[in-house]
Formats: sequence, structure tokens, C-alpha cells
Amino acid sequence: MKKNYLLTPGPTPLPPEICEALSRPIIHHRTPQFQAILKEVGENLKKVYQTSNDVFILSSSGTGAMEAAVINLLSWGDQALVIEGGKFGERWTELCEAYGIKPVVVKAEWGKALDPEVLAEYLKKEPGIKVVFSTLCETSTGVTFDIKKFGEVVGATNAVLVVDAISGLGAIDIKMDEWGVDVLVSGSQKGFMLPPGLGLISVSPKAWKLTETSKCPKYYFDLKVAKKAWEQTDTPYTPAIGLVIALNEALKMMLAEGLENIFKRHHKLAEATRAAMKGLKLELFSSSSGSDAVTAVKVPQGIDGEKLVKTMRDEFGVTMAGGQGEMKGKLIRVAHMGYISEFDIILGISCLEKVLKRMGYVFEFGAGIKAAEEVLAK
Amino acid sequence: MKKNYLLTPGPTPLPPEICEALSRPIIHHRTPQFQAILKEVGENLKKVYQTSNDVFILSSSGTGAMEAAVINLLSWGDQALVIEGGKFGERWTELCEAYGIKPVVVKAEWGKALDPEVLAEYLKKEPGIKVVFSTLCETSTGVTFDIKKFGEVVGATNAVLVVDAISGLGAIDIKMDEWGVDVLVSGSQKGFMLPPGLGLISVSPKAWKLTETSKCPKYYFDLKVAKKAWEQTDTPYTPAIGLVIALNEALKMMLAEGLENIFKRHHKLAEATRAAMKGLKLELFSSSSGSDAVTAVKVPQGIDGEKLVKTMRDEFGVTMAGGQGEMKGKLIRVAHMGYISEFDIILGISCLEKVLKRMGYVFEFGAGIKAAEEVLAK
Repeated sequence: MKKNYLLTPGPTPLPPEICEALSRPIIHHRTPQFQAILKEVGENLKKVYQTSNDVFILSSSGTGAMEAAVINLLSWGDQALVIEGGKFGERWTELCEAYGIKPVVVKAEWGKALDPEVLAEYLKKEPGIKVVFSTLCETSTGVTFDIKKFGEVVGATNAVLVVDAISGLGAIDIKMDEWGVDVLVSGSQKGFMLPPGLGLISVSPKAWKLTETSKCPKYYFDLKVAKKAWEQTDTPYTPAIGLVIALNEALKMMLAEGLENIFKRHHKLAEATRAAMKGLKLELFSSSSGSDAVTAVKVPQGIDGEKLVKTMRDEFGVTMAGGQGEMKGKLIRVAHMGYISEFDIILGISCLEKVLKRMGYVFEFGAGIKAAEEVLAK
Repeated sequence: MKKNYLLTPGPTPLPPEICEALSRPIIHHRTPQFQAILKEVGENLKKVYQTSNDVFILSSSGTGAMEAAVINLLSWGDQALVIEGGKFGERWTELCEAYGIKPVVVKAEWGKALDPEVLAEYLKKEPGIKVVFSTLCETSTGVTFDIKKFGEVVGATNAVLVVDAISGLGAIDIKMDEWGVDVLVSGSQKGFMLPPGLGLISVSPKAWKLTETSKCPKYYFDLKVAKKAWEQTDTPYTPAIGLVIALNEALKMMLAEGLENIFKRHHKLAEATRAAMKGLKLELFSSSSGSDAVTAVKVPQGIDGEKLVKTMRDEFGVTMAGGQGEMKGKLIRVAHMGYISEFDIILGISCLEKVLKRMGYVFEFGAGIKAAEEVLAK
């Protein structure tokens, strides 16, 4: 018997209510029955996005929604700025380059956030920059960027701020309107507790102006077409009906818990996880700006990081993520995002202790659990 | 109590085995567990596509896979030809135009197929045409195009044949390799008996050469990137994991029934449906090339077509489709595609009889059912 536990930063575990919603008979999308669902989803998405703008639902991975942001705002030859502190920051750069937009790339060291002052200086030096691309939580490093400050900096210029909040939205706070985020992108498989397959995107009036001049060719991800359909409570093409119906249930669960409570829960789980890692004398990869959605820790000297993750998963059923890109084999990434309780964290740490001990890492059994329990008891 | 029955040409009803698969706990996509599923899906997709080429899985609607075909084969200014006989033929034209490709549009009258000779003449007149876009089953009219003949015609030229088989694949026969189809596009929510959210696309070696010269900008739908990932049994971005797992189950069900048996079942259901309509003295919209996936019939004089469809759905739970585009309000479209048995057809006709009678159409109760039963008993 092997019981499985998922502690990865996307996909995240599905609540039983979502499994049930996914298993329902399908309904047709151009019916009053589905329109009623779309309407409710639309209203509740605005609450979770903390915005008065519409949130469009795309049938795609989060990357599809990122592409929608790039190709609806910009044109070949335009200037943009990308804040790049990991694999998903790099994706903005790749997307810009694919469409002939040469971005000014502002690198944050992997595992570190970016000082908003640095961003301000770049924007002063390059007043032609139309769009600033950032990431809320860089999944590959476990860093949360200071979007509120970025919003202040970018808000004082003519540029618009686009944030990839695929990891993080619905887990950590991001106030789209209040913080001056112009385009907010997310996906279904993280804070929303759903399977992957939906990309979500909202556009402020300031950013919408750019869609009027954008010359990037587009069809499937054309947000003007999405907006026109949305005004009729419709989608341009057959949507991922089952996922939208499950999204409706997820949003109701999230709003019943309350956004503030969700953020507090994630913060507490993150604090417990960070404490546990310190208790085990493991080094956090991101010391000062660790994300409340996912914690990245360095694999200790002499331990094979890939084997560690593989053993936890294949022998004991506990799936965490390893490092990506330049950090492959060097990190363990434990997610505490979405449908995760304190005891999921406890069991994850217990499994980590079990396998670390077996691989020869020296520590006292229970040292991680003890530290976590102390935080969780507060 | 109102029990619901879905007889629409996408989405089509979900078998209980698929509902169960969709309700399973989610697993991570970069694991040997998911890779084993991807591998099996890949092998079985080739059998259903009747091809030795890889079939790539995109997380998108079918339209996303259509866009992938356009932007991976062509460049701005290229010449293409679109066979347009309904709303989904028009989509190829719109896609081409969005990317600066001015298509030669060959119109087939709505409800009629296109004589392959006409296609041959166009290709002779315009030897610069690189790609011919067609539709297997035009969902908006219930017409099946003669893809086998189109394959012969296009195969004799330098052009490649791209077929939108979103409606139809897995319901009616299309032999990709044998018939010379170069790019075959489909979606999850029709013959595959799944919810919408997956686009599928396969590319022949002849068509793959065009991807080497294509200059359309692309990222999310870049098939070269998809191919590279696929060679590692992977996808470039987080796939719609739950739908892929359900696709694995659907493919096993389809291959257990056998493609030939599936096609025979669909043909028999279509014949029964067509006979029923004649029994009710309703006129088939497509007389000579009616599709085995969906039957379109004209709403009789004096009957409000939209009200007819609405009453069947909202009062009796039987959902059929009405007309689209220029045929809005003028057609009833009954699908017999995917997880549909003969008794689903019987109940659909019974509901149609009930509501037609109530709306004042003159016929004898049971006339449609009788004709259908006679065909089904053969």
C-alpha cells in the first residue's frame, strides 16, 4: 500500500468537492445553464483578483495567458522590461523575443528579490518602455517579489505593470487595483486548487489602451475577441467546460474561507515549513523574501538531490519538486499552496526527515517536526 | 424531476469511466507516473489518427490546434487555399487573415460538399499555394467533405493538406497516412468523449518541412518545441493533466470497441436519424453528403426554430443544437457522435416529436421513431 501526497508548486491537490465537480456529466456551453455558471464565475473571479476589471478565462496553460499579455499589449520593435529572477521570469523574456520585442532584462539573482529602486532607475533611463513584466512568486526559486512597490514605481510612469501570478494568486495577497497592477495573469492549478488547463487574465483600463495599438498577430488569444464574447457572457471558442464548472466550486470555497484567512493560512504553513528546515539545519534558498506559496531549500552537501526527491515520491508517495534550470539537483521545493493543511506539511517534513536520515544526513529525528509544531501551535 | 440528455455536436456525453477518471486525485506531470500515461496516450493516439506520425497534445480548444497548424506551416504573405462550406471553414480563413496570409477561398454552398475537381482546378491555376485547409465534418451544416479525394488531388501537388477533424475524428473514418492528410487537427470534446480542453495535432514529414521555413511568430503553439518535448515524453508547459489521464481511458475504450466498429455504429445511428427525419417529413439540410457525426435538418415552415430547441432543452432536458451563422434559427442539429447509443437517438427523436406536435407541426406521432427503429433493426 502506498498512499500519495502532493506537495508540488503546481499542480496542487484537488479538494474532494472539486473531484466531484469534475466528475459531473458535461453540459453544453451555449446554454442558459452554463451562462449562469460563467456569470457567477466572472463575479467571484473579480473578488479573488481584487479588481473591478473583468477576468477573462482562456482554455490554456498559464503560459498561454502570459502569451496573451505579450501579444495584446505590444508590437514588433516595442520596448519592454522583464524582471528576471528564475525560470518563469525567463519565460517573459522568451515570449517577448518570440514576437520581436527586445526586452531590457533586469536580473535578480536566483533566490533574491529585486530592489524596487533598481526598477525605478531603469524606467528613468529608458522612458520608451511600454510594459514591465514581473512575477509574483517565482516558482523556481520560492521568491516573492514586492509587487506593491513595483506598482508604485510603474504607476508613476507611462508604462504598465504585467504580473505573472500563476503561482501565488489565491495563496498570497495581490491587490490588483489597489497596488496598480495593470495585467494580472494566473492559472487554475495552484491557488485555485484545480487541475491545469485554464489561464486567467485581467486587464486594467490603462493597459487596455495598449491593446488598441498592438500589432502582434493573434487569433486564439485575442483579448478583444474575448472581451466582446464576455460581454455576452460567452467565450469565443468552446471553453474547457468541466474546468470552468470546477472553478465555480473552487471560487465559492475560497470566498467562504475568506481571502484574508487564506493568506493567513498560507503564511502560517510557510512559517512552519521554514522553521522546520531551519530545525533540520537546511539552508533556505531565499532567506529574506521567501514565498508563502512555496519554500525552496538547498540540498545539503553530499546528498544527491534528485535521488532524494525520487525516493520520497516513488518509495513513500510524497511528491515534492526538485530544482529547475540552473538549480537542477540543488534544491528541494515544498509547496504549501492551495488545498494544504498543517498536517500535510507535518507529513511532508516527516518524509523528508526519513529519507534524509537514510541518505546519511546528520540530524536528530523530529527536529524539523518539532520546529514546525511550535509555529503551528501559535 | 428533469433528466438531461446531450445530443449536441460537441461537447458530447461523458462515459462513466471518463467521469471517474476526471475525479481522480491529480498527479504531477514531471514524474515517471505521468510519463507512462503520456507514452500510452501517444501510442494509442497514433492508432486512432491512423498515422505513424506523432500526435501532439496541446492544452487548448480545437481552435488553438487549428492556429498551431496555420502559424507553424506558413509565413506572412504566403498563399493558401481554404475550402469553406460553413462556420468552421470560415475559421480557417479568419486564422489565415489574422497572420497576414491571404487565402484563396473556395466556397462550397452551405449544406453541400465540394467537388474535388473544383479543388484540382484551383490548384492548377494557383501553383504557389502552399497549404490547403479543409474540414472533415462541417459541424455547422452536417456535411462531410471527401477528404480521401482531396488527399489525392493535393498529394499530386507541392501543397500540403490540413484537415480540421475536430468534429468527426473517432466517429467517422479518416486515414491520415493512407489518404495523404498532412496535418490532422482534432479536439477532445467530440469523438473522444471527453470534456473540451485538449487540442490534438499531427504533422506529416511533407508538412514538417514547411515548419522549417515558417516565419509566423509563435511561442505557446510552437510545434518544434512541442516535438522536442515529446521526444522526452514531455510537454513544453504544464499540460491539462486531468484531461490527458481521461484521454488515456477514452483511447483504451475506443480501441477496445475497434475503429471499424465505431465507424459502423456512427453510420447506423446517422442512418436511423436521417430516416427518422424523413419519416417526420423534415428536410435534411445536407442531402447527398450528410455526416455520420451530426445531422442537420431544416426547421419546417411556420415553426420557430430557436423556441423548438429551447423547449426541448429547458422543459424536457434534451439538448440539441440550433443553426449557427447564416442558418441561425433555421436548423436543428442532432449529434450522434461519441458516447451515443441507439436509444439516445430514439429518445431524442421522441422529444423532437413531442415538441414539434405541440408547436403545431402536422405529422403522426411515432412516424420518426418507426423509421428509426426499422433502420436500427437491420
